[in-house]
Amino acid sequence: MSELRFDPIRRRWAIIATERRFRPHEFKRPGRDLPGDIRACPFEYGNERATPPEIFAIPRGPRSANGPDWAVRVVPNKFPALGIEGELTREGVGIFDRVNGVGAHEVIIETPDHLRPAADMTPEELALVLKAWRERLVDLRRDIRIRYVLFFKNHGQDAGASLYHPHSQLIATPIIPTVVVQELNVAREHWSRKERCIFCDMMQQERALGERVALETDRFVLLEPFASSFPFETWILPKDHSHDFALCSDQLLFDLAKLVREFLRRVRTLLDDPPYNLILHTAPSPHPRPGQPQFWTTIEFDFHWHIEFVPRITRIAGFEWGSGYAINPTPPEEAARFLSEVAADST
Amino acid sequence: MSELRFDPIRRRWAIIATERRFRPHEFKRPGRDLPGDIRACPFEYGNERATPPEIFAIPRGPRSANGPDWAVRVVPNKFPALGIEGELTREGVGIFDRVNGVGAHEVIIETPDHLRPAADMTPEELALVLKAWRERLVDLRRDIRIRYVLFFKNHGQDAGASLYHPHSQLIATPIIPTVVVQELNVAREHWSRKERCIFCDMMQQERALGERVALETDRFVLLEPFASSFPFETWILPKDHSHDFALCSDQLLFDLAKLVREFLRRVRTLLDDPPYNLILHTAPSPHPRPGQPQFWTTIEFDFHWHIEFVPRITRIAGFEWGSGYAINPTPPEEAARFLSEVAADST
Repeated sequence: MSELRFDPIRRRWAIIATERRFRPHEFKRPGRDLPGDIRACPFEYGNERATPPEIFAIPRGPRSANGPDWAVRVVPNKFPALGIEGELTREGVGIFDRVNGVGAHEVIIETPDHLRPAADMTPEELALVLKAWRERLVDLRRDIRIRYVLFFKNHGQDAGASLYHPHSQLIATPIIPTVVVQELNVAREHWSRKERCIFCDMMQQERALGERVALETDRFVLLEPFASSFPFETWILPKDHSHDFALCSDQLLFDLAKLVREFLRRVRTLLDDPPYNLILHTAPSPHPRPGQPQFWTTIEFDFHWHIEFVPRITRIAGFEWGSGYAINPTPPEEAARFLSEVAADST
Repeated sequence: MSELRFDPIRRRWAIIATERRFRPHEFKRPGRDLPGDIRACPFEYGNERATPPEIFAIPRGPRSANGPDWAVRVVPNKFPALGIEGELTREGVGIFDRVNGVGAHEVIIETPDHLRPAADMTPEELALVLKAWRERLVDLRRDIRIRYVLFFKNHGQDAGASLYHPHSQLIATPIIPTVVVQELNVAREHWSRKERCIFCDMMQQERALGERVALETDRFVLLEPFASSFPFETWILPKDHSHDFALCSDQLLFDLAKLVREFLRRVRTLLDDPPYNLILHTAPSPHPRPGQPQFWTTIEFDFHWHIEFVPRITRIAGFEWGSGYAINPTPPEEAARFLSEVAADST
């Protein structure tokens, strides 16, 4: 029988729909994304002038800005959702509210190699991408107009990627995004009642039960959330409590890169290179907000950064949009078992 | 410049991304859905035994259940997200919550004609579909396990439709869905402070401004919400305050059908027959909820039923999922202008 499950952190219901049960081998993709014309790709090595001037780069050797010899390169998005120029204005329009679009929208070009998705990078290479995320996070927090920096990766057209070349993105917003505010509020409320982190509590319970933990290393837990919204939705959390991705050491990022790579390879094997989104949730920028100082008094204790991974192999249709409920045909316990048993592909 | 806009009813932000501005003629669909093998369609006239036994039908003439001569037919979904059998149980699992999957999942077969989408029906035919919705709503409310009945329509594969034959669906849930609870709470709070309906207030403001009202009839307003999450997202609201779709007269449903048909034809012309979701938000079932009687004391005054229409021509990608913000490249003022100026297709 199907069941409705409630996620206490995201405060979301999911319907785990066993009548529609979906197993990995049933999933065959209609077609793969094609790499397109490599020479025309604006993210390609040697095409550095095809992007707006770079903001940051991790060099391979001595180089000048916008030249070659980079390992990771960060550039402004050519069609930004939010722009970095101008003063922030907040305005009421009758019963509505409007804020002008100040923020940032950047692209992290993860590798010079068009044909080298994250699952094929070495752990060393993937660690450089995570370092670039950390550096951009630290830098953008200096801008007091910016309240939050959301890092995300869209892999595959069905997950929203418009360019094939491996890349991730960040959007920095003048307001903390709704989904993050929800997590922050829940975490703070839990801590204020119990003086414990709700993410640590959840991890402890999941590790004791074992049913939904798919992989575990010395430093990280990789689990399928109890109320997963999608088949093979996955969370990666550091075992040691930490509210802020910006505080990760190089060593921790390397450990994370190893785990993410292993996980992405298992997913590729199981689900035939699915389109996916990968999202980082970390603490917001530590600027005081007038009237809401409470966000900052306990955040080091109550919030816990994590990565959310969502394969895009089911659709968000009318019911999901109109209800806010997900319909997930794969129980997370089954997804965890498949993930823990499959061998990573050896390609 | 882009701007962030806040929707006071859904309490959601949208980024109206003018750098990415999208106009209707720029939208060309990669391919159309194919109608498939009509003889194999389980919703076809004469194939009535291919579905589970019918729950309700609007006959064309004298007929027996599951025979031909129907205009609209309602059957259980063969792969239901929730099932009608069994007693409702609510259970805690450590920090998690679980409710067994009691509810209903039904399909409203809108016409015997495989090749007759809603935009091609006569207003009389479409009014019968709306009547079937009303009858199912009234009937399912008699079941005290059910707290809400959500009606929705997925048109096109990219909007989640797995069968081509024109149909809509309902899912009845033992919990009021999150998105509806949000609207109910906001409406109640507004009414408790002002003794006015927030939907009526919004409509009055929009009709006075005129910028986002695309169509208007004696009985209904069709508008693009200020903080539209998608290009050409549209709301249809009755002008006379009413909290409950179940109270609609036949005449009102006929007026609504005329407007919906006209709107769907305009959308088809403008956006090249886009995939879409259409969702009904009405009042929940009037069963008392222990500890929350306040839902019912003012609901006749504060809530206002409406239809939400969402064309699925942009993607929900990593940023949208991780933030809860939409990125919408079409300002609703432009969408309203296009909709009000285009002639409905004459096919």
